[in-house]
Amino acid sequence: MIKAAIVGATGYAGQELLRLLLRHPEVEVVSIGSRTYDGQKMEDVYPLYKHVTKDICKNRTIEELSSIADVIFLALPHGVASGKINDQILDKCKIIDLGADFRLKDLDIYEKWYKTEHHGRSLINKSVYGLCELHRDEIKKAQLIGNPGCYTTCSILSLAPLVKNHLIQKDSIIIDAKSGVTGAGRNAQLPYMFCECTESVKPYKVGCHRHTPEIEQELSLLNGESLKVLFTPNLVPMNRGISALCYATLNDAGKKYSENELNALYHDFYKDEYFIRILDDRIPDTKWVKGSNFCDIAIKVDHRTNRAIVIGAIDNLFKGAAGQAIQNMNIMFGLPEKTGIDLITDYPV
Amino acid sequence: MIKAAIVGATGYAGQELLRLLLRHPEVEVVSIGSRTYDGQKMEDVYPLYKHVTKDICKNRTIEELSSIADVIFLALPHGVASGKINDQILDKCKIIDLGADFRLKDLDIYEKWYKTEHHGRSLINKSVYGLCELHRDEIKKAQLIGNPGCYTTCSILSLAPLVKNHLIQKDSIIIDAKSGVTGAGRNAQLPYMFCECTESVKPYKVGCHRHTPEIEQELSLLNGESLKVLFTPNLVPMNRGISALCYATLNDAGKKYSENELNALYHDFYKDEYFIRILDDRIPDTKWVKGSNFCDIAIKVDHRTNRAIVIGAIDNLFKGAAGQAIQNMNIMFGLPEKTGIDLITDYPV
Amino acid sequence: MIKAAIVGATGYAGQELLRLLLRHPEVEVVSIGSRTYDGQKMEDVYPLYKHVTKDICKNRTIEELSSIADVIFLALPHGVASGKINDQILDKCKIIDLGADFRLKDLDIYEKWYKTEHHGRSLINKSVYGLCELHRDEIKKAQLIGNPGCYTTCSILSLAPLVKNHLIQKDSIIIDAKSGVTGAGRNAQLPYMFCECTESVKPYKVGCHRHTPEIEQELSLLNGESLKVLFTPNLVPMNRGISALCYATLNDAGKKYSENELNALYHDFYKDEYFIRILDDRIPDTKWVKGSNFCDIAIKVDHRTNRAIVIGAIDNLFKGAAGQAIQNMNIMFGLPEKTGIDLITDYPV
Amino acid sequence: MIKAAIVGATGYAGQELLRLLLRHPEVEVVSIGSRTYDGQKMEDVYPLYKHVTKDICKNRTIEELSSIADVIFLALPHGVASGKINDQILDKCKIIDLGADFRLKDLDIYEKWYKTEHHGRSLINKSVYGLCELHRDEIKKAQLIGNPGCYTTCSILSLAPLVKNHLIQKDSIIIDAKSGVTGAGRNAQLPYMFCECTESVKPYKVGCHRHTPEIEQELSLLNGESLKVLFTPNLVPMNRGISALCYATLNDAGKKYSENELNALYHDFYKDEYFIRILDDRIPDTKWVKGSNFCDIAIKVDHRTNRAIVIGAIDNLFKGAAGQAIQNMNIMFGLPEKTGIDLITDYPV
Repeated sequence: MIKAAIVGATGYAGQELLRLLLRHPEVEVVSIGSRTYDGQKMEDVYPLYKHVTKDICKNRTIEELSSIADVIFLALPHGVASGKINDQILDKCKIIDLGADFRLKDLDIYEKWYKTEHHGRSLINKSVYGLCELHRDEIKKAQLIGNPGCYTTCSILSLAPLVKNHLIQKDSIIIDAKSGVTGAGRNAQLPYMFCECTESVKPYKVGCHRHTPEIEQELSLLNGESLKVLFTPNLVPMNRGISALCYATLNDAGKKYSENELNALYHDFYKDEYFIRILDDRIPDTKWVKGSNFCDIAIKVDHRTNRAIVIGAIDNLFKGAAGQAIQNMNIMFGLPEKTGIDLITDYPV
Repeated sequence: MIKAAIVGATGYAGQELLRLLLRHPEVEVVSIGSRTYDGQKMEDVYPLYKHVTKDICKNRTIEELSSIADVIFLALPHGVASGKINDQILDKCKIIDLGADFRLKDLDIYEKWYKTEHHGRSLINKSVYGLCELHRDEIKKAQLIGNPGCYTTCSILSLAPLVKNHLIQKDSIIIDAKSGVTGAGRNAQLPYMFCECTESVKPYKVGCHRHTPEIEQELSLLNGESLKVLFTPNLVPMNRGISALCYATLNDAGKKYSENELNALYHDFYKDEYFIRILDDRIPDTKWVKGSNFCDIAIKVDHRTNRAIVIGAIDNLFKGAAGQAIQNMNIMFGLPEKTGIDLITDYPV
Repeated sequence: MIKAAIVGATGYAGQELLRLLLRHPEVEVVSIGSRTYDGQKMEDVYPLYKHVTKDICKNRTIEELSSIADVIFLALPHGVASGKINDQILDKCKIIDLGADFRLKDLDIYEKWYKTEHHGRSLINKSVYGLCELHRDEIKKAQLIGNPGCYTTCSILSLAPLVKNHLIQKDSIIIDAKSGVTGAGRNAQLPYMFCECTESVKPYKVGCHRHTPEIEQELSLLNGESLKVLFTPNLVPMNRGISALCYATLNDAGKKYSENELNALYHDFYKDEYFIRILDDRIPDTKWVKGSNFCDIAIKVDHRTNRAIVIGAIDNLFKGAAGQAIQNMNIMFGLPEKTGIDLITDYPV
Repeated sequence: MIKAAIVGATGYAGQELLRLLLRHPEVEVVSIGSRTYDGQKMEDVYPLYKHVTKDICKNRTIEELSSIADVIFLALPHGVASGKINDQILDKCKIIDLGADFRLKDLDIYEKWYKTEHHGRSLINKSVYGLCELHRDEIKKAQLIGNPGCYTTCSILSLAPLVKNHLIQKDSIIIDAKSGVTGAGRNAQLPYMFCECTESVKPYKVGCHRHTPEIEQELSLLNGESLKVLFTPNLVPMNRGISALCYATLNDAGKKYSENELNALYHDFYKDEYFIRILDDRIPDTKWVKGSNFCDIAIKVDHRTNRAIVIGAIDNLFKGAAGQAIQNMNIMFGLPEKTGIDLITDYPV
């Protein structure tokens, strides 16, 4: 059994990790970490755990945990993890960081977008960007994973085949993404109150959301040349789900493809990937990926304006956070990749 | 492996059955039954099944299924099942009927409330009312189960300890229950459209809902004497969940109990029941039972008006339908009762 | 023009008052009061006011306001208003208090339920309980109005004809009410976050909600003898609306009435009331009273259990707060009662 | 008093017209038209009208209505109105068509996108595109108005200043719009059921929505040269509201403008328009325009990718349909433009 610890287990992503790990057949959860709820039973924080686990939240250090855990999942605000990880810890256990600290390879870009100092510069070369479908081989050998952001997972997976095959004008990408309210975390703030959220849709952080450089890093890597994207998120009144609508202008090579041919290219690109579902006749709808690790993708072509339009959908807390973190763990520990995350969720919900 | 078939697998309860059975470690699903979607892939009816199963919906008769299945789950409108089951079928396989046809022992009451003829009068003595916590021993030996209604499951479990111990005036029970919209099924009808349902709460079938005689039958059985209840359901704008608020006047015996003593009595009554959670300091909230087989119960006493108030909460599609049906199957086949239904759901939603 | 001031204009009820008063043909708003947003433009607190008013929130005392206003509306937490009103103020202007301080005539009951001292004991005899349909004549002459609570307005109006006509057993009343989330006010608190509120229904303050003694006071007055009620509120995931389901056992006089006769009695009781709509074939649904001052009422009889069931529905912020406050103002100033509150709201919301 | 008739008064847009016209100080509603509900009281179709109007829905022809009405509002499916209007009718009364038949000047484009024949080709030159802020002078003299679509109103108003001033590359426009569910009308269809709509966001009609040519027509007119746009709508789980996120690449002229300068240009462009609100520090949120005729607009510049991003928000049934129709009527009849539509809505919801 893999001994797993969670730091930050009472936020939405941390709790999603916990519920999945508690039912993972190869995992034993050795620590439910929480600073806010230190000493309280998990069932008092999330009453769904009554009769399920009597475990108590503890505020343990990563240092301590590294002696009792094989893998530590970190669900912390950005800027925290980078100051707490070091080589000694990484010698003793594997780290999967759900925060932003180990995703960007260029730390100047990190510091510019996150407006904070990075405290673990020497570790950045050891970290692997944990987008499983694109970095599986590196993940297998990694001790430290920067688990991708929710918007980025959906955006990169949606655009990868087009970019990798050089079918679009590289600086033409616009991503308009919509997210449910869990993306804002479990904090009491006026804008996310029920009465203020229902009957409301709005864009936010237009052109300046921090997931932008992460998307650019990975698409540039696929493209071979650096590219820029314009990324805008929108808040929609639902709990879970991200829908990313990606627009790009076809270049001369891309124009030769029909919609069917691009669809075939997508099928081929992801032909071995269980968690990527290329849709043929449907547009991705967040409700069909809710509670799963799937990323649904469809590709359309608008010949009038010469653009490819790719639509991706994921569950932001599952494939966009906890589910992918466990997928990374499965890869790192040599388990079948679906282990513990191939659930069939409740519908509707 | 138990070979299981579902008749009516594309309604909300039927689909909930399917998703649970597909992940049940001791079950093989041998037929996904649907008249409406006969010949279509399940993934085309509910796209969440893409990559999960390639199975196709078929409109098979119960007769046919009885030769290939060890257990058949029926999720049909009332009045249908009673005409399709017979002794020959029951000799070959077990039947768990999620509809209303085999719940009421007094068929005159059935015909009066359901305004339809019952076609299987001879079978009614063979059927067992499948409320697991109250009829476990009979269920073990049954071939035919009338799986309880959603409102009834919640109401009966909430009131059983009070009634069994004769602590309330027997005709004083009022149940005010609230349900999510999935209770109305998966049919396109104006009142259940998004725009007509949000921002709206209303009672319906005041004093005349068909779950009333079912509650009366079981509470009368517990009480030893016949009793009547006033039951009113309300529609609330959410998907899943039932909250039952049960009011009853304490009799002289009941008045001697403090709230704490009644709470202890509830703990004791359900002390061996994993799926019943007696809350001490909280009021049941449907969100904490969503996607689970739990029934949460709290008991309060209002000394000013001399009444006991019991609050129960379940997921109407899980403990109120598909989950309890599988719990019944587990009991009938000698499996550990939690097998395949002890999930930890996604939260929020 | 009536000069009106609002104290506490940035909470949900206060803002509802403001928007109605700004379009009231006989009113000039002379002060938008707010402590939290003192000095800020109303359009910055509620951006819907952009282009509508450039007015600025001010933290003025009631003392100050009494010199510039003909009527002051108070939307304050309980216990505050009672210490700020005095005879000098009441000589200069009329006060309509939307809080709880001037509703209960028995201040011992007030102090017991609200667990706070009442600071204006000498004023209580001058205050009138502002349930317009029942106290119109007193309201006409009043300087100080205790504007009724939301749950109480709906409950009392629903039960008044039965109680006044002595058709029910006086201590048999149970009220099970459901409210939208605006009832919890505009404060950032975890339980009222979008993610924690959707897909959730739960009772709260079972048997101990502070609106109980207010309902008892008014129904006792109608009955001629003191009576007790059991009142339980429930939180449902919508913004506005209260649905009150009132149960009572018919006494010997009541049993003689058929459902139709009771319906006729209700029609007669409220025959001159524009804002009370007795429904004949429908059950009240909160969506049809949203944004209006109407109270919809239906009466049902369950002969099996010998009970009358009355269902009432109002908009908690309109008839349950701001609308009724303006209805009171109209009565106090001799205006036609519908002035400024006979709106037709947007549907669906 | 203007005598107004509505044809199609029981759909969502038609009903919105009715409720506004019933409170319009210069209007008398002479006919509530409905084929489906012919002969029924409006209060039975929408119970919010109880005590408000006793009027009955009638299925009158436009021919008949032209003799009794000064203005007829048509809320009909596309393809119907064009066959029912003729010169004789237009001689007798004014027509405001909320459908699509009289919006597009090029009927070949109409027939291509709507896949239906246009039956009133000779009338198209008499019709005026009723986007009030851009065509006010023509509207004043018009007998026949093609009232703009909801998506188009929001998109065109958002982009007009940029296009008119030639600051963007003319074929670079991408519009990603989000709409509430009322946009789908009041029909019982499975995809718009509550249970299927909540917790769900999805794009639809990607690149092929019929509002596209309407946007292109008007922006081309402003630009002086023909241009193409890529328009994609998304369905979000709320009732009302459209948020349009418009992306365009700045051309050499545009690049010279700072964000502040573009903001000033927008302020100037709409300086006399009450119903257009240019936001300085906020992003438009649909909740703040709900129930109003306002269009909120903000402009952002992303210098990294050299793009202007304009965000517009309207209420799809108000400014996007019924409110704008009445604004057109006010202009046509020489009334102050705000008459009857300068409401302050209820908030929240």
